[in-house]
Amino acid sequence: MTPRPATSQVRSVDDYRDAIEQLLRPLALRPTEPAAVPAALGRQLAEDVHSPVDLPVFRNSAMDGYAVRSESVVVAPVTLPVAGVVAAGNPGATPLPPGAAMKVMTGAPIPPGADCVVPVEDVHTDGARVTIERGRSTGEFVREPGTDVRTGELLVSEGTRLAPRHIAALAAVGLPSVPVFRPIRAAVITTGDELVPAGTTLRPGQIYNSNGIALAAALTANGVLVTSVEHSTDDPEVFRRLLTAATKSADIVFTSGGVSKGDFEVVKDVLQPLGGQFGSIAVQPGGPQGLTVVDGIPVLSFPGNPVSTMVSFEVFARPILRELAGLPEVTIRELPLLEPVKSPAGRRQFLRGRVTDAGVEAVSGPGSHLVAGMAWAEVLIDIPAAATSVPAGATVLVRSL
Amino acid sequence: MTPRPATSQVRSVDDYRDAIEQLLRPLALRPTEPAAVPAALGRQLAEDVHSPVDLPVFRNSAMDGYAVRSESVVVAPVTLPVAGVVAAGNPGATPLPPGAAMKVMTGAPIPPGADCVVPVEDVHTDGARVTIERGRSTGEFVREPGTDVRTGELLVSEGTRLAPRHIAALAAVGLPSVPVFRPIRAAVITTGDELVPAGTTLRPGQIYNSNGIALAAALTANGVLVTSVEHSTDDPEVFRRLLTAATKSADIVFTSGGVSKGDFEVVKDVLQPLGGQFGSIAVQPGGPQGLTVVDGIPVLSFPGNPVSTMVSFEVFARPILRELAGLPEVTIRELPLLEPVKSPAGRRQFLRGRVTDAGVEAVSGPGSHLVAGMAWAEVLIDIPAAATSVPAGATVLVRSL
Repeated sequence: MTPRPATSQVRSVDDYRDAIEQLLRPLALRPTEPAAVPAALGRQLAEDVHSPVDLPVFRNSAMDGYAVRSESVVVAPVTLPVAGVVAAGNPGATPLPPGAAMKVMTGAPIPPGADCVVPVEDVHTDGARVTIERGRSTGEFVREPGTDVRTGELLVSEGTRLAPRHIAALAAVGLPSVPVFRPIRAAVITTGDELVPAGTTLRPGQIYNSNGIALAAALTANGVLVTSVEHSTDDPEVFRRLLTAATKSADIVFTSGGVSKGDFEVVKDVLQPLGGQFGSIAVQPGGPQGLTVVDGIPVLSFPGNPVSTMVSFEVFARPILRELAGLPEVTIRELPLLEPVKSPAGRRQFLRGRVTDAGVEAVSGPGSHLVAGMAWAEVLIDIPAAATSVPAGATVLVRSL
Repeated sequence: MTPRPATSQVRSVDDYRDAIEQLLRPLALRPTEPAAVPAALGRQLAEDVHSPVDLPVFRNSAMDGYAVRSESVVVAPVTLPVAGVVAAGNPGATPLPPGAAMKVMTGAPIPPGADCVVPVEDVHTDGARVTIERGRSTGEFVREPGTDVRTGELLVSEGTRLAPRHIAALAAVGLPSVPVFRPIRAAVITTGDELVPAGTTLRPGQIYNSNGIALAAALTANGVLVTSVEHSTDDPEVFRRLLTAATKSADIVFTSGGVSKGDFEVVKDVLQPLGGQFGSIAVQPGGPQGLTVVDGIPVLSFPGNPVSTMVSFEVFARPILRELAGLPEVTIRELPLLEPVKSPAGRRQFLRGRVTDAGVEAVSGPGSHLVAGMAWAEVLIDIPAAATSVPAGATVLVRSL
């Protein structure tokens, strides 16, 4: 056998994932940019936002009704003259005359002197006068300024991924834009002379290139901005040129293929001399992996089988990318296995699975080329490295795709 | 009291939601359009997609190794001459000479005549000859055509919201684009003379318009394409003009404000004569509601308080919009209530809440103006109409925002 380089000892999944996470964690400190409040939906807030105003901004009515002094309605029923109407949007500067009522609309300012509102449903009126049936308490149906949020109070915290309810609050305090983190920018380079683009007719030995499209989709779905998706032949000069362009535009580069033990391993051949760690991880699929830092940019090199590429992304990159983007953690559950599975000794296996009411079952086989089978899966079933078989009914960890 | 029109009897939440869902369900039949496979991420597939090819397309090697006839290695160890190398992308037409081996890379065609592959890890070689230590079975490390998916087999079903794993499969079978449903198109019209845009200085009685931005965000987050967001004054002519434009560009129109019992209810004043049903729903917040069909387009009229608008969307529109868009159902869980709550008699209440390890607690008060409080919430706590108080420890339904 040819001797293996020192970097190719078999590493555990957790150890390798930790190494990748350590390399990517500095991407938490990304530049910020302003985002218009409607367009900031789904973006990650870069600073604590404190309210620039009180909400409510001014004392206003919670109901369509009549603003009165509570002392005017202590003895009830009582009929009061209607001194005017305050619409929403009215400056609300006209004071309530003593012993009178003023009609107020929901959201309209409470006239100075009034201290409660009697809802329109609870009165009789002929327009000029209003009859109020029972006494009312100070403050009833009056919204006081600052009771929702006070000027200077924390409204939305740094790091929050802005949901519609956050957007609503930012709009309500009148902020036209907020600072958000620039998304992590990723470039993708696929490799392999056998790959051709979709829509072309396959010649013998050729297959369609799915890894570039699949990685771009997975990155996009996890909050990453894909800056480029390129394909390299197995010519090291072509790969080197694409790599240089990628590291100039992106915070992280993903490659697929060219990392194994074949004669034409363009990714390994170019990156290993640059200090790349290429070796085997105790995992199936996705065993051969490479990790390099080129001009300060982490380059993650996944194997080229489509399922290997996707599972590598799920296991090694997705959890940290979601954390950095402020997205919820990947869901991991314990479920009973519905049918027994076999697993290679010493390699943690991620089987494609589907969840039923009764538990989880594998779909398609373990082969790293079964990309259609992956489309039918909802989860990865995590079989520990030590297990060579797991019986039906045993509890397994299941990771949502 | 002024007599109420016949349409204003109080309806239950479920009854009113059913009426809205019945009105919106025909939007399931929407036009389709082609989407490029990378850009189709998150879109809803409009037809079953069957694979146009076998995957694997051709018989290929699962490993970097040596393709042999299994009968050549029955008596092992055995040393065979290496008759050539088949790289991935090679047409693979050269047959394996009897009694020889051919080096093959992962994904490369199996040379005619070979029936198994011996992985490179398991051999000794000097380049010209290869020594194989033990016998091998027919088919070992050989991927047969169509074992992932066969030509004509169902690959992804109609209605599927395309996730990265579906995109990967569609790319792997070489489809450059797929038919997807056009998203539901919605227009938003906010109303109220008191509302001004973010970034302007408030004059007395004015507040910032958050409903347009909030509804647009909520629609976008639930798979709907927002075609316009406009603001109307309380002038019926302005509202009428915006409504006409909205119904021409959208499949559904949302309005906020102008539906209650005040003197200036522009939405009700314009839509009720067109057959709109305006009345009270037994819910808090969000009691006053309107439902109209204008030129065949459903118009949902929510009340103008920001929280009423958002809760109306969550309760009446979001479940059906997600169903129509092929998105997962809104999550509804049962959780213990951590602190007692009071609730108005006869009205189902949706309190803003936050989930802890121990259960669910209300955040901010029940007021329909507490929009900052809504930003701090993760869920709506569903208090049944019949309840006037719910004790701590009681189980309540909790709906994720």
